[in-house]
Amino acid sequence: MPLYEVLTERDALSPADRDALASGITAIHVAETGAPPSFVHVAFSTVEPGSAYTAGRPSRPLVVRGQIRAGRPPAVREALLRRISALCVETTGVPESDVLVAAVDVPASWAMEGGQIFPDPDPDAERRWLDGQTPTAP
Amino acid sequence: MPLYEVLTERDALSPADRDALASGITAIHVAETGAPPSFVHVAFSTVEPGSAYTAGRPSRPLVVRGQIRAGRPPAVREALLRRISALCVETTGVPESDVLVAAVDVPASWAMEGGQIFPDPDPDAERRWLDGQTPTAP
Amino acid sequence: MPLYEVLTERDALSPADRDALASGITAIHVAETGAPPSFVHVAFSTVEPGSAYTAGRPSRPLVVRGQIRAGRPPAVREALLRRISALCVETTGVPESDVLVAAVDVPASWAMEGGQIFPDPDPDAERRWLDGQTPTAP
Repeated sequence: MPLYEVLTERDALSPADRDALASGITAIHVAETGAPPSFVHVAFSTVEPGSAYTAGRPSRPLVVRGQIRAGRPPAVREALLRRISALCVETTGVPESDVLVAAVDVPASWAMEGGQIFPDPDPDAERRWLDGQTPTAP
Repeated sequence: MPLYEVLTERDALSPADRDALASGITAIHVAETGAPPSFVHVAFSTVEPGSAYTAGRPSRPLVVRGQIRAGRPPAVREALLRRISALCVETTGVPESDVLVAAVDVPASWAMEGGQIFPDPDPDAERRWLDGQTPTAP
Repeated sequence: MPLYEVLTERDALSPADRDALASGITAIHVAETGAPPSFVHVAFSTVEPGSAYTAGRPSRPLVVRGQIRAGRPPAVREALLRRISALCVETTGVPESDVLVAAVDVPASWAMEGGQIFPDPDPDAERRWLDGQTPTAP
């Protein structure tokens, strides 16, 4: 965690768009929260063209739904939302009005990565957790 | 917000089914909550045929997962669930036993649309928010 | 509920992998919580190859996100996370470091199945709820 899931119509984003969004979202999350980059996951989900709707009519939203560890101050969440929204507009050319971003709290203890319950958002806890991870051979 | 994500096997819903569900879910949400229609997003996600399971065996559920703004009275949520479940059965012919609907609270301040933090579920806050949105040329 | 959504790149899991994960997740959930097997749904979502990232670089995570009824003791959640993570490694050969599992609480009253608001995680409530379900002809 965090896991940011980006949802668009299929073919709305090029591979270069995805690379840029993934790098940008990761950099923003690290800058605003201090979390290690290796904690940040971004996945791009798609729906079939014509199967997203707003106000009951076809639309082409770009949705970013983040699940972040609970405990961040409100100003941090707001910075994540503002910067990720702006990144989406700059990177993809999608109109700002079609960009939806949410950052939803999940308590760290509700998630496991690499076989260990996730640490609270605290540098010491994160360092101990990283020390407990067994690196996987590439 | 709200964002309602409908999850089925690919090809379980025709384009006409999707249109009808999107219109119907939007109308139900607006009627029960008073939210502006432009707030309501519906997206249809799919999994490969044969990749949904219930009780460990292949199944064909129709899942609707809504993320709605926190603060609605319990009776409003219950009405959303009942009416959306009934709509799915009527519209698609999927058996009622295979229809799952959830409406999960997300605090308004955890989400941004069109570059603005989302307003609380209150008509005055919503009007001010809509006034702050810059329309996008079509 | 629960609904466990497994997210991987397309083609990361064979049909046999999916069968084994669905059976295993269902068995673990039933064993740890006592919920009826028919409550347990597992769906396998996919993203296009090359569209998942960790630390801003392409990665191949296996993500399991469960929405479970609120009210389980912490030790039950931890057992779910540990056993499902281990199952994923054993079943699929994905390295443990690439396995992410989360089990997020959703109050039972926020969900409906088969036209009825979902019961609290209590055997008596569950029995009454099951008695109220109309079986669907196969």
